[in-house]
Formats: sequence, structure tokens, C-alpha cells
Amino acid sequence: MNESVGDWWSTGITDIQPGSIRLRGYPIQDLIGSVSYPQMVWLMVRGELPSAAEAELLELTLVAAVDHGPQAPSIAAARMAASCGLDLNNAMATGVNLLGDVHGGAGQQCLEVLHRLRAEVESGESPESAARALVTEYKARKAFIPGFGHRWHPHDPRRDPLITALGRAVEAGTVSGTYLTLALALETVLAEGSKPVPMNVDGATAAIYAELGFAPELARGLFVLSRSVGLLAHAWEQHNEPTRIKGPLPKGINPTYTGPGPRSLPEN
Amino acid sequence: MNESVGDWWSTGITDIQPGSIRLRGYPIQDLIGSVSYPQMVWLMVRGELPSAAEAELLELTLVAAVDHGPQAPSIAAARMAASCGLDLNNAMATGVNLLGDVHGGAGQQCLEVLHRLRAEVESGESPESAARALVTEYKARKAFIPGFGHRWHPHDPRRDPLITALGRAVEAGTVSGTYLTLALALETVLAEGSKPVPMNVDGATAAIYAELGFAPELARGLFVLSRSVGLLAHAWEQHNEPTRIKGPLPKGINPTYTGPGPRSLPEN
Amino acid sequence: MNESVGDWWSTGITDIQPGSIRLRGYPIQDLIGSVSYPQMVWLMVRGELPSAAEAELLELTLVAAVDHGPQAPSIAAARMAASCGLDLNNAMATGVNLLGDVHGGAGQQCLEVLHRLRAEVESGESPESAARALVTEYKARKAFIPGFGHRWHPHDPRRDPLITALGRAVEAGTVSGTYLTLALALETVLAEGSKPVPMNVDGATAAIYAELGFAPELARGLFVLSRSVGLLAHAWEQHNEPTRIKGPLPKGINPTYTGPGPRSLPEN
Amino acid sequence: MNESVGDWWSTGITDIQPGSIRLRGYPIQDLIGSVSYPQMVWLMVRGELPSAAEAELLELTLVAAVDHGPQAPSIAAARMAASCGLDLNNAMATGVNLLGDVHGGAGQQCLEVLHRLRAEVESGESPESAARALVTEYKARKAFIPGFGHRWHPHDPRRDPLITALGRAVEAGTVSGTYLTLALALETVLAEGSKPVPMNVDGATAAIYAELGFAPELARGLFVLSRSVGLLAHAWEQHNEPTRIKGPLPKGINPTYTGPGPRSLPEN
Repeated sequence: MNESVGDWWSTGITDIQPGSIRLRGYPIQDLIGSVSYPQMVWLMVRGELPSAAEAELLELTLVAAVDHGPQAPSIAAARMAASCGLDLNNAMATGVNLLGDVHGGAGQQCLEVLHRLRAEVESGESPESAARALVTEYKARKAFIPGFGHRWHPHDPRRDPLITALGRAVEAGTVSGTYLTLALALETVLAEGSKPVPMNVDGATAAIYAELGFAPELARGLFVLSRSVGLLAHAWEQHNEPTRIKGPLPKGINPTYTGPGPRSLPEN
Repeated sequence: MNESVGDWWSTGITDIQPGSIRLRGYPIQDLIGSVSYPQMVWLMVRGELPSAAEAELLELTLVAAVDHGPQAPSIAAARMAASCGLDLNNAMATGVNLLGDVHGGAGQQCLEVLHRLRAEVESGESPESAARALVTEYKARKAFIPGFGHRWHPHDPRRDPLITALGRAVEAGTVSGTYLTLALALETVLAEGSKPVPMNVDGATAAIYAELGFAPELARGLFVLSRSVGLLAHAWEQHNEPTRIKGPLPKGINPTYTGPGPRSLPEN
Repeated sequence: MNESVGDWWSTGITDIQPGSIRLRGYPIQDLIGSVSYPQMVWLMVRGELPSAAEAELLELTLVAAVDHGPQAPSIAAARMAASCGLDLNNAMATGVNLLGDVHGGAGQQCLEVLHRLRAEVESGESPESAARALVTEYKARKAFIPGFGHRWHPHDPRRDPLITALGRAVEAGTVSGTYLTLALALETVLAEGSKPVPMNVDGATAAIYAELGFAPELARGLFVLSRSVGLLAHAWEQHNEPTRIKGPLPKGINPTYTGPGPRSLPEN
Repeated sequence: MNESVGDWWSTGITDIQPGSIRLRGYPIQDLIGSVSYPQMVWLMVRGELPSAAEAELLELTLVAAVDHGPQAPSIAAARMAASCGLDLNNAMATGVNLLGDVHGGAGQQCLEVLHRLRAEVESGESPESAARALVTEYKARKAFIPGFGHRWHPHDPRRDPLITALGRAVEAGTVSGTYLTLALALETVLAEGSKPVPMNVDGATAAIYAELGFAPELARGLFVLSRSVGLLAHAWEQHNEPTRIKGPLPKGINPTYTGPGPRSLPEN
């Protein structure tokens, strides 16, 4: 046994011995049947088990974001992959890969916004004035506030059940409500414009993740766990269809070509 | 609206309209808070909601396979990816990509074995004789029976809680028990050798998936949903460590080189 | 230094020592400037340097398959990835992942067909009769012969320059011509039907790879090196466009929904 | 034909019509046999053909970076993928995915440094003083200058042949030499410390890419084309070995576990 080599792959998550698997110290055989999937996610990522109420809040977010149909490039790419003969894991990986800064990162960015507002409130500002200053700043540089507004939905149907549940969790004392207040303050300020820009699913889940104490970057990882459900369903549906090598457009519709016209190679 | 273009991306899973998201016909706002993550997985992949008892069985499998530490190449690859500066989604995708035929496919293969045995039993053979014939055949070609035996664990600690729960579900009438009987028959025959080869996590989850009516290929997809939890936890742990561009071996240990010795380019 | 640990990652390709990089025994500083990219590909994959004429043939195939526009799902997926904010390497990896059995595997399958025909000719059959039997067999099971016919091109414009160059290489004695004869025999038999089904780029490159002695599976790997050029060009073009989260269809065109109509959750 | 739908996938790179493939306006049948792989890379990415001398410089960089053995996480991950039964394209994609900011991004970052120095020199500073100020700034924040120094090689053996060839290209008038001067100025300043920190392969290729007018982000994409050769060679070597599910450490060496000791689930 070469200690330095084992150290190179050291981990505080899982302890594997012959006949024994312990996750964060707990034997796997005790966890199976005792903890739910959301509780296991929390234990694995954060090291301790959540309360039942905390796990319920987390589960809402994992359920909410499973799919937005093939117009989402992640889902479309996974379906294309399945049509190219890839196995389900490779097709799902293709889709997960696309959940980057722009597609899967809004939750993380919204959490960062909420953390910034919290710091300003702790410095003595009111939620409303902090929110107003932030909105003004974003508007000045023509930027969207991450987690607010949706290009498809005037009102994202996932917002209300998530925010209502979060409000109940505040009342029940499961979480403090600090971040919910800030998210609602942003929403209020954003409603003062010509057209309201309500929280979307990324904003509502970010408020929950902030209340539950998840680091901003984990919003993206938790979104992956949720959207992977949609990726599996769509890759499987595509797998069972006859289309092969599925391009983005049906046969007979060509991408518009905008480059140089026909030309010959230069004489050498 | 060009009908043929919309048809090209037709789907029976999700219906998106402005302000409305319906999954398999159910409004998302009704699902959030009413269904668990495993129920949502089932609904999305199979089109209908499971009973509570079915969803509980499914959840056991999603909890059981979350991690087997960095010795698993999927986990190691995700950690390497994180050490190369990749975001969590890209690191998780890297790991999911590795859950192929050999790493993540044993459950699928075990399901195929169970379906074959079932067909033989329906043709009049007893579970024992069908299992014995199959074991003989695999031994003759020196092949492992997928879902049995584990290179780390003489007895996979995940087997017992899964099989015990499945037994209870048979007693309760949730599932028929046909596939459990077949899996146990295989285990009995395999115990007759010099050394028992008990069911591993892939075999135990395959028995559950077969009882629940999942197609074999979906075993791999469901395994992805489970192992993604470990991928997230490990990618995040690695992300928070200072190592950059993490190779498989620590500095100072070189891969052994087995190719041609030093040589010069041929004269032209 | 732990010998067994270094052995675990043993390789015959590259020998790295402080200040020294040898590829297949040759110092990297001697290779840079002396060998072309195709020569390096050959050296790395096969262990020895090719002749100049062999490298030229290989280069033709690497040039021929660089792109087929965004209708190819690999290219479309890479562009979607770029529109999701992924870096060029992640976008290119997404595209490469899609070059699976169906999208990138035709060359490999065509090589396997050519090897089978060669075995039959070595057993005494004529190329024509072996080709005719194979075509009959494929038609009987309504299968396409890999490497022949193209859903876009009645005559793939990449066929002629590749096959002409291969013919010249046979004349020059660079390669034997065995596989070219077999590929042309297949084409001749396929032209006897109602409509000719000429070789496509996969078939023409497969003939070249067979003549050059590449294993069938490497056809896919070499195709990856070629198509990666298109993936880079398209990911970069997309990166420089403003579209974010690019779905397969433009805004205003919805995927057709074919699932169950609106429904309510069952009462519990 | 729906114009807006074709526009959604518009591209200036490739024009596909039945029987016709034009890349940047040139018919593919004219390109095959007339242009080398590096010329094709340049044409596809930049829209016009390079001179022969420019293409030669580019080819040097594509040859130089093909491999650094299995200690590179990209190569190790591709080998692990191959050992999990993935096809070559999926194994190569896994490796390409890892060439992120930290592993494959040094060239891009070095180009950005060179562009910054160029701007300062255009504002009247001398190369030496601009380089000295930059080195001072990086040292103050304990940062490495991208493209200089190598954790394995006191002197990267790829530096000299690349820089020598670039020097000759400056003499021949192929490129201006502006960026070579700046890179050498940085190297000179870095040699003034206790230990010289010479240019590495990323720095030398970045100097060439800057001279050739490639945008910084393309350094990463071109590196992908080069390292994909090593990925193919290693995935193929691994594919032909019997190891399955290859973990980072050989059997018998466990990752060190650093988490909580054995514990029982809390009573509910």
C-alpha cells in the first residue's frame, strides 16, 4: 500500500472497503430505504443529512425543472444524439454538457445576485433600495437580471408553487426568509416598468437554494439532476423512433448559406 | 406556423405554450409539491404516474447506486474534469459519458438475462433448470453473468436491503415476484460453485426494474440519475481543492513506457 | 517509485521524462518541422512512420470529410453548445460525441464489409460474385450497404477525387488495389438496380483506409479528426453570433405535441 | 421552403446542394488533393486560404501538441472511457471535454497577454518595459504567466523548434515578428529571477497563432485538433487491452478516505 498514491485520490465522501460502502460515514445498507433521493443528494453534496422539511423544499426544485421540451438545446441535442445511435448515457451526457453558463447557469447567477443584495442589506440598506439600485445598474448596461423574465412565458407557471411553498417554509421556521424577501423585492421593483418581469424557475429555485444554504455553483449541479430526467425521457422517446441522424430541420429545408459565392481555387 | 417543421420535433412528453407547461398532460404547477422526484421520473419516462408503492421501490434504486468512490472511472474522470477548470455541468457530463456498456450497462444486460429466463419459464421450464442452463452456458464461454459478483465486495452491501424490500413488495402485491424468483434462482445456482457469486447492486436493481416493468435499456438511464448524485458531490469536492490538471498518478510517478526505445528519424 | 502503479498506466505511445518527450521513440523536437499532421497521425496510431505517398492518401481523407453543414446533427449540436456559452473545447466535444454508430460509423461498417469480401475472394470467389451475393443479402433484409448512397447527394462529390487518387496510388504501387477492386465491384452491382447507388464519402475513405491497412474501428477515429475541423469552424461562427440558448427551431415555431391532452392529477 | 426556418441555421461556411458541397465557396472536389489539412483548417475557420508558408507554420503547432501521455487528465479520461466500452468517438469526446480553461486554455490566455503587450507597445512603451511591468504585476498576485514554465520540463523540448521556425518565418517575411519579440521579451525578463521560466508549448504556439492573426479563443480550438491525435492513439491502445472499468489506481490501492468515521443514522 503506497500511502501517497492513495492520498492523491483522497475523498471525504465515500469509504469503500471489501463488503462495506459508507457514504459520509453512514453504511449504505442503512441509507437504502431510510432516506429519500433528495436527502441523499443533500448528504452527498453537503456532508450531513437535512431535516425532512429541508429535503421537501429541495425536492420541489428537483421536480420543477425536469423539462422544457425540445426547444431547449440540451433536450434537442440529446435527441439528436439518440438518433445517431448513441446509448442513453452518452445521449444524456451530451445534453448535460449543454447546461452551461447561459442555459443552466442562470440559477447560479441569481444566487450571486441574492448574496450581493444580502450583503448590502446587512450593511444597512433596505431590501427595496438595494433591489432598486441593482435593477437600475442592470438596466443601465442593458443586462437581464438572472432568474427574472422568461422568453416563452409572460408568467412562468413554476414560479407560484415554488414561491408559495417557500413562503410556507418561512412561516414554519424551516428557513429564515431573508432571501425570499430579497427575491420578492427584486420582483416588485421589476414590476414598476412598462411590463412586469416576474421570477422564473431559475429565480424561484435560486431563492430556495439560498434559503437552504447551497453555494451558488451548486444551483447548476442541482439543475443537472433535475433536467437529466427530461433528458432521459426525450432520449428514450427518440430512441424508439425510426429517424436516424436527425438534423435540426426536416429534409427539404436547407440552412441558408451566407458565405462567398461559388469560386475556383487560385492558380498556384 | 409551418406544420411540417413543428412535426420534425414532435414529442408526446411536454407541451409548452405561453404561460403553460404540461408534462404528459399534467400542468407543472399541479405536479410541483404533489409528486416526488421518483414519481416524476416514472411519469416522464413511462407516461403515467406510478402508485406510491411503485415509486418507493424505484426510489430505493436511485438511492442505492449514487456512488462507489473515485476508483470508479466515471467519478475519477469527473474529478479530473473539475480540476481542469470545467463547470459542474461539464464535469458531470464527462462522468455520465463513461457509464457505457461495461461501466453502466450491467443492469441492462442483467434485465435481458431475466427476460430470457422468463420466456423459458413461460415455455414450461422451472426457474431452477432455466437458471442452471444459463449458468452452464456462461461458464462454458468464460463469461460473467451480469449483475452477479463484484470485484470489490465478496457480498455487495447494497444487495440485501434492495432484495428484502423487493420481497416485501411481492408480499404486498405491488409486484408479481416473477423476476425476483428468477434472480434468486440464479443466485442459488451460482452459490453451488467453489465460491458464491451473490447478486450485486446491478442485479438487485435489475430485478426491481424488471418487476416494475422498465425496459432493459432504461436500467442504464436510471443508473445515470443515481450516479449523477455522486458525480456532483465529487466534482464539487474536487472543485474546492487546489489541485489543477489532476493526472491519475501523483507527481513523481510516471506511467511505465513500453514502446520502442529512443530512435532518430529516418534519413529522407 | 512504485512500479506497479506506473504499470497501471503503461503505454507504448509516449515517453515523458524531464525535458524529454518521445513519441513512439522519436524525440518531439525532431518530429516538429519534419513530419506533417497526417504523418503524425499515422505514427501515433500505428507506431511507425508512413511513406510520403501513404501520408498523402491519408491526408485526402482528412480533408474530404471536414464538414457537411448544420444539417449534420454533430454540427448542429456543437453550434447549440456554443450558443449556451460553452467554450470551444466543450462545444467540439459535444459534436464529436454524436459521431456514433449511425452518424460516424458508416466508414467502420464499410471496412468490415470490404474485409468480408476480401476473405471470400481469398477463398476463391470472384469480386463480382462476392459483391453480388452481399448485395442480394442486404436487399433481402432491406438494409443499406454502408458507404454507398447518400440521402442528400445522388452522386457524392467527394467520391470521384478520392477514388481517382486511390486509383493512381494503385498504379504507383503505393497500395495493392485489392480493396479498391472490391469497392468498385460493389458499386457496379449496385448500379444494376433501378437507380445507381454510388459510393459516398464513407465508402471512398473506407476503401482508402483498407488499402492503407487501418483497422475498421479507426475509420471512425480518423473521421473524428476530419469532422473536428468543421466542428471548430461552426462553433466559432456561432460563438460570434448573438443568439443564446439556440433551440432547433426559431421562435414562433413549436414542436408538435402528440401526448395526452390536458388532464388533472388523480385524487389521492 | 420556409425562409425564416432556413435562416435560423444560416451559415457562411458550407453550402450544401444536391450533388454539391462548397466550403467557403470552393467546391469540395477541387479542395481534395489540392489543399493540405492545415490549409483546410485555416480556410474553414477564417474563410480564406492561407499562403503555403502560413500553412506550414500552422502545421508545426498541430504536430507539436499531439500528446503528453496518460499523466494528462484528458488522455487518462479517454483511456478510462475506452475501458468502459465506449466507442472511439465517445472516448475522444470525453478527452476533448477536459481541455478546458486550465488544461487547454493556456494558449488562449497567453495570446491575450501578447495582445495586451502589443497594445502597450503601440502606446509607446518598449517591449522590455511592458514585459517587465507585466511580470511584476503577475508576481505580485502570485500568478503564473500563461505559456511560460512547465511542471514537468525545466525546458519544454517543443519550444525551440517552434520558436526557431517562427524566427525563420519572420526573416522570410511571412509574419511581422511583433509577437515573437514580445514573447521573447517576456522570456528574457522571466530569466532574471532565481530560475529561468522559459516558454512552453502553449507559449510558443500562442506566439505563432498571434503572428498568424488567429483570435485568442482559437488557440484552444487548434489545440483540440492537435491533442485529438493523442486521444485517438491512446483510446485505441486502451481499447486493445483487456482492462475493463479502469480506475485511476490499480486494484489493491484505495483512495484515502478523509470524511467522518463510521456512524449510524439518527433516530427519527
